[in-house]
Amino acid sequence: MSESTGSNLPVGERGFCLWLTGLPSAGKTTIAKALVPKLKAMGLHVELLDGDEIRRGISSDLGFDRAARETHAGRVSYVAKVLSRNDVVALVALISPYRSSRARARSEIGRFVEVYVDTPLEVCETRDVKGLYQKARAGAITGMTGVDDPYEPPEHPDIVAHTVNRTPDEVAESILTDLARLGRIPRSRG
Amino acid sequence: MSESTGSNLPVGERGFCLWLTGLPSAGKTTIAKALVPKLKAMGLHVELLDGDEIRRGISSDLGFDRAARETHAGRVSYVAKVLSRNDVVALVALISPYRSSRARARSEIGRFVEVYVDTPLEVCETRDVKGLYQKARAGAITGMTGVDDPYEPPEHPDIVAHTVNRTPDEVAESILTDLARLGRIPRSRG
Repeated sequence: MSESTGSNLPVGERGFCLWLTGLPSAGKTTIAKALVPKLKAMGLHVELLDGDEIRRGISSDLGFDRAARETHAGRVSYVAKVLSRNDVVALVALISPYRSSRARARSEIGRFVEVYVDTPLEVCETRDVKGLYQKARAGAITGMTGVDDPYEPPEHPDIVAHTVNRTPDEVAESILTDLARLGRIPRSRG
Repeated sequence: MSESTGSNLPVGERGFCLWLTGLPSAGKTTIAKALVPKLKAMGLHVELLDGDEIRRGISSDLGFDRAARETHAGRVSYVAKVLSRNDVVALVALISPYRSSRARARSEIGRFVEVYVDTPLEVCETRDVKGLYQKARAGAITGMTGVDDPYEPPEHPDIVAHTVNRTPDEVAESILTDLARLGRIPRSRG
């Protein structure tokens, strides 16, 4: 068994942004967390920019209407850009419901891989990690993506991740295979 | 002549934040720009977070009153934190007039080196890189640090940089000597 590490890639070409988009409770954060140790084991620097945590860091002033979501996605893009151009893999787990925001992120960051976490709405609602679907259906909150706010699925995602009847580890491994195919990480991983 | 590179430092200990604070036109950005190639030549990843440019990236919504400046400094801290914990040297060139903001940055980032760019106000006014002192003295703008807005000098900066009668290159070299003394970069630089 041979082992190849991220360090084998030339300095300056190790970083990229893996942008996971999908409905609330689609599994974005779970998949990203499963990817972190696997990418680190390849010798890569990895930073997880998770929706909630990065909001506390740079967007605590923002709400969840369209303008606020777009502003937030723009700030996340900036952070992902400065990380990825310094050889860090920036994992972004963000609903990012608008195609326009994701197109801007791709354009700004350059080394950009869009992952559509394609979990059906009814499955997301069953998972309901934060209890937000239930609150939205009860009318206790508004502006819930998938309920009373739109989600625009990617038309040409670089990677599609299906999560039904698959463990987070299986999904993460499948994404790594795709990343190798795309030339973002070495092909042979031992 | 021996040469030591940043790569000699263990992975995970190469990053830190060099936070340059001082009056407008004190020389923060000029010094930071002089440092970039020198640090890169040591094998380090370097990102310059310059006041104006990073405002466009993450704070285009903010003005220059105290609350806005503190919010902006907090966002810059977040970006410097995620960079420095991924082995990137984050150079911050920001007036950052308030001790409280800088104390929060130190606390959040951890690997933090505060550089007080100690240029007398009258020298800064003569330089007046952006013409802002002239505008402030003419009453055309308000909230100008050093004129009608306070600047709180660091009480215990890690490094003091004097810029009068010194070239940017000389100041940068002096800072590198101090960084070596502080253990942030290797001592011998060839």
